[in-house]
Amino acid sequence: MANEPSLSHLSPEGAARMVDVKGKPTTQRAARAEAWVNVGPDIAAALRQQGGLTKGNVLEAARIAGSMAAKKTPDLIPMCHPLVLDVVAVDAHMVGDCVHIVSRVGCEGRTGVEMEAMTAAAVAALTVYDMVKSAGKGVQIGPVRLLEKQGGKSGRWQRQENCDAAD
Amino acid sequence: MANEPSLSHLSPEGAARMVDVKGKPTTQRAARAEAWVNVGPDIAAALRQQGGLTKGNVLEAARIAGSMAAKKTPDLIPMCHPLVLDVVAVDAHMVGDCVHIVSRVGCEGRTGVEMEAMTAAAVAALTVYDMVKSAGKGVQIGPVRLLEKQGGKSGRWQRQENCDAAD
Amino acid sequence: MANEPSLSHLSPEGAARMVDVKGKPTTQRAARAEAWVNVGPDIAAALRQQGGLTKGNVLEAARIAGSMAAKKTPDLIPMCHPLVLDVVAVDAHMVGDCVHIVSRVGCEGRTGVEMEAMTAAAVAALTVYDMVKSAGKGVQIGPVRLLEKQGGKSGRWQRQENCDAAD
Amino acid sequence: MANEPSLSHLSPEGAARMVDVKGKPTTQRAARAEAWVNVGPDIAAALRQQGGLTKGNVLEAARIAGSMAAKKTPDLIPMCHPLVLDVVAVDAHMVGDCVHIVSRVGCEGRTGVEMEAMTAAAVAALTVYDMVKSAGKGVQIGPVRLLEKQGGKSGRWQRQENCDAAD
Amino acid sequence: MANEPSLSHLSPEGAARMVDVKGKPTTQRAARAEAWVNVGPDIAAALRQQGGLTKGNVLEAARIAGSMAAKKTPDLIPMCHPLVLDVVAVDAHMVGDCVHIVSRVGCEGRTGVEMEAMTAAAVAALTVYDMVKSAGKGVQIGPVRLLEKQGGKSGRWQRQENCDAAD
Amino acid sequence: MANEPSLSHLSPEGAARMVDVKGKPTTQRAARAEAWVNVGPDIAAALRQQGGLTKGNVLEAARIAGSMAAKKTPDLIPMCHPLVLDVVAVDAHMVGDCVHIVSRVGCEGRTGVEMEAMTAAAVAALTVYDMVKSAGKGVQIGPVRLLEKQGGKSGRWQRQENCDAAD
Repeated sequence: MANEPSLSHLSPEGAARMVDVKGKPTTQRAARAEAWVNVGPDIAAALRQQGGLTKGNVLEAARIAGSMAAKKTPDLIPMCHPLVLDVVAVDAHMVGDCVHIVSRVGCEGRTGVEMEAMTAAAVAALTVYDMVKSAGKGVQIGPVRLLEKQGGKSGRWQRQENCDAAD
Repeated sequence: MANEPSLSHLSPEGAARMVDVKGKPTTQRAARAEAWVNVGPDIAAALRQQGGLTKGNVLEAARIAGSMAAKKTPDLIPMCHPLVLDVVAVDAHMVGDCVHIVSRVGCEGRTGVEMEAMTAAAVAALTVYDMVKSAGKGVQIGPVRLLEKQGGKSGRWQRQENCDAAD
Repeated sequence: MANEPSLSHLSPEGAARMVDVKGKPTTQRAARAEAWVNVGPDIAAALRQQGGLTKGNVLEAARIAGSMAAKKTPDLIPMCHPLVLDVVAVDAHMVGDCVHIVSRVGCEGRTGVEMEAMTAAAVAALTVYDMVKSAGKGVQIGPVRLLEKQGGKSGRWQRQENCDAAD
Repeated sequence: MANEPSLSHLSPEGAARMVDVKGKPTTQRAARAEAWVNVGPDIAAALRQQGGLTKGNVLEAARIAGSMAAKKTPDLIPMCHPLVLDVVAVDAHMVGDCVHIVSRVGCEGRTGVEMEAMTAAAVAALTVYDMVKSAGKGVQIGPVRLLEKQGGKSGRWQRQENCDAAD
Repeated sequence: MANEPSLSHLSPEGAARMVDVKGKPTTQRAARAEAWVNVGPDIAAALRQQGGLTKGNVLEAARIAGSMAAKKTPDLIPMCHPLVLDVVAVDAHMVGDCVHIVSRVGCEGRTGVEMEAMTAAAVAALTVYDMVKSAGKGVQIGPVRLLEKQGGKSGRWQRQENCDAAD
Repeated sequence: MANEPSLSHLSPEGAARMVDVKGKPTTQRAARAEAWVNVGPDIAAALRQQGGLTKGNVLEAARIAGSMAAKKTPDLIPMCHPLVLDVVAVDAHMVGDCVHIVSRVGCEGRTGVEMEAMTAAAVAALTVYDMVKSAGKGVQIGPVRLLEKQGGKSGRWQRQENCDAAD
């Protein structure tokens, strides 16, 4: 099949497997991902009020939970490699009625850190959901997506379209 | 502020806290959540081919990872209570160019299982992303959202709009 | 198929699932399991010497690791329920050239603790292997098996044959 | 004592300790281990039927659980070092009335991956037990044992006898 | 020996064991513990400055880390029971040159939550140390101690002396 | 502010962050920390009696728990990096009415192992507390503090004052 994509996490027989990175060169790896949480106007206003205090604490809890989750990625995602991360950074800001989370992960290794960045962003978003759900169970998370990656054989990749999904 | 929503995970001073559920009655709790992963037509075709084998394994890995993640929810989400879950069920099917994940969690407890359902769905989606990302780094996750919850003081809640977010 | 056994951890379609124990009565549950590690005569002698000191420490490390592992069972075994255990007890003694490990787990719950007992015994045995492998990589673990369970709809079950597998 | 084996995980006073690998050269490490689960003829037949579907799912769950467990080895085994694994691969096949599990682990490091391979095989076997125990609590696990290791000062080691323990 | 204290976590032979709480009545349990971190005048001033922002974030990180650690107690302390906690609350304030951490944990169970409170306080203190150690490696943690417990056969216990250890 | 200490775990805006160690040279790192547990004369006597057996087991449990906790440090402390540790060693001895715990951690990495040593010492101390608390809830932990560190840009640091805090 000509344009069939390569699913490297599946063995020829289709079983899930961890990619063997033995012998791959160790290079600088980096990835950034984002997650959006559309909390609606009322919760957004509540998060912004009180001199930044409330906002600070929900977003700070999300940042910390996301940072810790990046380190748990191989525990959560079956075929992910354990890695010695050099940095995990998670930012969370209000953008309109949304919480916008951006994660950045770096390491020097034989495999990339895309999943660590995606996991950090997703868990930070789940933490926001947890902290506002008493006020709005219908709050939605998404998109969660990779923004950029660097390093490795495939080099640099950057999301092409505008990051306007939550507009 | 009249219509300010209640953010019960924040103390009056705005600090993140775990809600004290002491003395709340133990009731049957249930929650269902969904996550969508838009993998695009090429990966969707690859997941469907080979007599269901490949499809089975990516989706089975996602189901298992999601089920295990539900049990890790209090480890991931700072203010979540540990719970003795009666069931975690995660389904994953192809719907058009998307993988559609639906999780269901139940327990008998003093607090709800919304976060367990949301976490199961989100981690199942991250697992799908991990297993197809070699073929498409731009694949997006979302929406991740609650479909339904039952039990507790607030009783039953059901998502109103059509679940057509991934169309 | 007349004598086909029931595999309750598989859905009718064959997908792995957690059994839903909602509504099952809460009863006293108990299980005992054993694991044997045949270390051979030289290591057995080394474990026994030095006034019981060495023996104490390898076996004590195994006992502690097994006890801690029982609590991790739902983290390790995909379809296991989290449980509030009342007790985990792991014993380890020298029997001939073998280390014999017996675990006992109890709880009050809607599902049994067989997997907790099996996991405790298996991880205690792995710990023995770890601590003696510098002296004998060929050391074998087995059998690991349930000795007894109590509680639940199926009531009491006891292993029939003599526990002489390591002779 | 002339032929007393060296138990490097014990200090001279007999206390459990982690071996200090500081200054050891970083080399390619690999290990393979196996575990057998004798499920008996009825369960073996059930696992084989239904066009491979059921078989696939029990064995796939075992493979995934074993792969994830390898990454948890330092969490389970007190004196094991954390390692950056290059690969974990777990296979599971029906052999007669047995499920035969073979794990393979590789890394580039200052200490070996025998325990990771052993843990992966053992937890995969426990997962099989969990999924079939409703049909046979008496199912036994064993032997669990190392097949081969490479790398490090002691170089290559291979099990001598035939791997026929489950016959 | 007349006044020999009872060490219930040791078997008659002196081996570490988990206390069997089977059959104990389920009662309301609560515990409070404290930890002090003497950071010295310079770091204390830095933590207080910037309109509360810096202070908020170090202390908020400590609070969140302590809350999460309480849930990990059975994973950290070998002979601790898993429990379904109703609440974990961790407060952190500046008192003179010290960060003063007070934790409170509650549950309904057959065993107490003293260790959860102690662990929460200790890990919150370690987190403060981590975040200030670039400015002062000599910072000391202590005392970490129980302030109060309620519930269970031994009923209420309260620390008698003044809580002035950090003066 | 002239003598304001540098809190490198805070971003310029005061948010908690993981220090980015990308590009830092990999050097030999080591750290030693201590923790004291003042158990009082009666418990100290009980720990010492019985030919060293009881003493051995409480202290051995503490040593093992501390060693395992060092490996969990990045899971517990939000802004800690995951590291590939070369060694964790935890000693525990009776000194007067106190249990004195000394931990030592080493690795080759881009960041130090102070937190691993501090965490090992603190969790070993918590384990002692757990095992003696039935005989004395008022037992206090502290000080927990760094004794020495080596490696990295700041080189060697050693505690100046006498280690007499528990006198």
